[in-house]
Amino acid sequence: MADSSRAQKLDLVFQHIRNVPDFPIEGIVFKDICPILKEPKALAAVMDLFEEHVRQNHPHTELIVGLEARGFLFGPLLAQRLGIGFVLVREKGKLPGPTMSVEYTLEYATAEVEIQVDAVDPGQKVLVIDDLLATGGTLCAACELMKKQKAQVLGCLVVIELKDLRGAEKLPVPVFSLLQC
Amino acid sequence: MADSSRAQKLDLVFQHIRNVPDFPIEGIVFKDICPILKEPKALAAVMDLFEEHVRQNHPHTELIVGLEARGFLFGPLLAQRLGIGFVLVREKGKLPGPTMSVEYTLEYATAEVEIQVDAVDPGQKVLVIDDLLATGGTLCAACELMKKQKAQVLGCLVVIELKDLRGAEKLPVPVFSLLQC
Repeated sequence: MADSSRAQKLDLVFQHIRNVPDFPIEGIVFKDICPILKEPKALAAVMDLFEEHVRQNHPHTELIVGLEARGFLFGPLLAQRLGIGFVLVREKGKLPGPTMSVEYTLEYATAEVEIQVDAVDPGQKVLVIDDLLATGGTLCAACELMKKQKAQVLGCLVVIELKDLRGAEKLPVPVFSLLQC
Repeated sequence: MADSSRAQKLDLVFQHIRNVPDFPIEGIVFKDICPILKEPKALAAVMDLFEEHVRQNHPHTELIVGLEARGFLFGPLLAQRLGIGFVLVREKGKLPGPTMSVEYTLEYATAEVEIQVDAVDPGQKVLVIDDLLATGGTLCAACELMKKQKAQVLGCLVVIELKDLRGAEKLPVPVFSLLQC
């Protein structure tokens, strides 16, 4: 698409992100993506930008892998745009059947993400999607899960990247973010 | 669409639901919708069937309201098909900003669902979507939330309805389900 069209779409997305101070705890300014979902043109703009990026940079992507819960809002849409499948990464205990999991550390605790063992085939080319990249803990764990399943992670996609937290440096693959804050 | 096309699509959806015995607890056969997401044609069929239903029966729908987490997989897709917005109902504590919540009872506990107070305008016509209707507790609570926001709930949409649990009888609005088990 033309640079002017891309800039307009990015601006529309940016206008539909709301800063919520002191959530979830005091001192944090939360990036709320709910307004994007509520405005169909903003959500379509997110998809146009993601779709263009994937078609240009990762045309052989076979699966979109999405992180619970906000990755579920964007992942199936992108997968349908590309005509490929979507796979769920969930918190431990939520997925039925045989699963495998990876533990990761939060500020004061640990958490685990999980995937069904038959979700991805060895060698499959996948992209991992979430709404936001902060410290990168969950996305890193999802990449680790893919590695365990012998999938080939081509990259990560997020709407917003919090640059100061340097999450991208932690990830084993390139991150494409629509907006950097 | 023609009856034969509708039957083919329903069959495709049905083929991509997996029965997982003894999940989340012994004696329960869990209906796993992950295979639908993984097969783009099956997910497109779900959307074709939902879209047809809404255009024929609720053409004035203004918003799709989706329940965390599996309602997030289907809701934004349907909202984009219809060119309308999507609103998130989440577990308590997950949404930033001013919210309102409704408590509901589980088998041995209570839970709460929450929505942002500015998510829906009074009088707006909404449809509530989730993957599955069991006893109807969460969908009922979501309808109650909409009532609190003075929205007009036109109906609920689910991929699968577990008829024996008679959840539909508990809901204040009609339920449209693709498959009844």
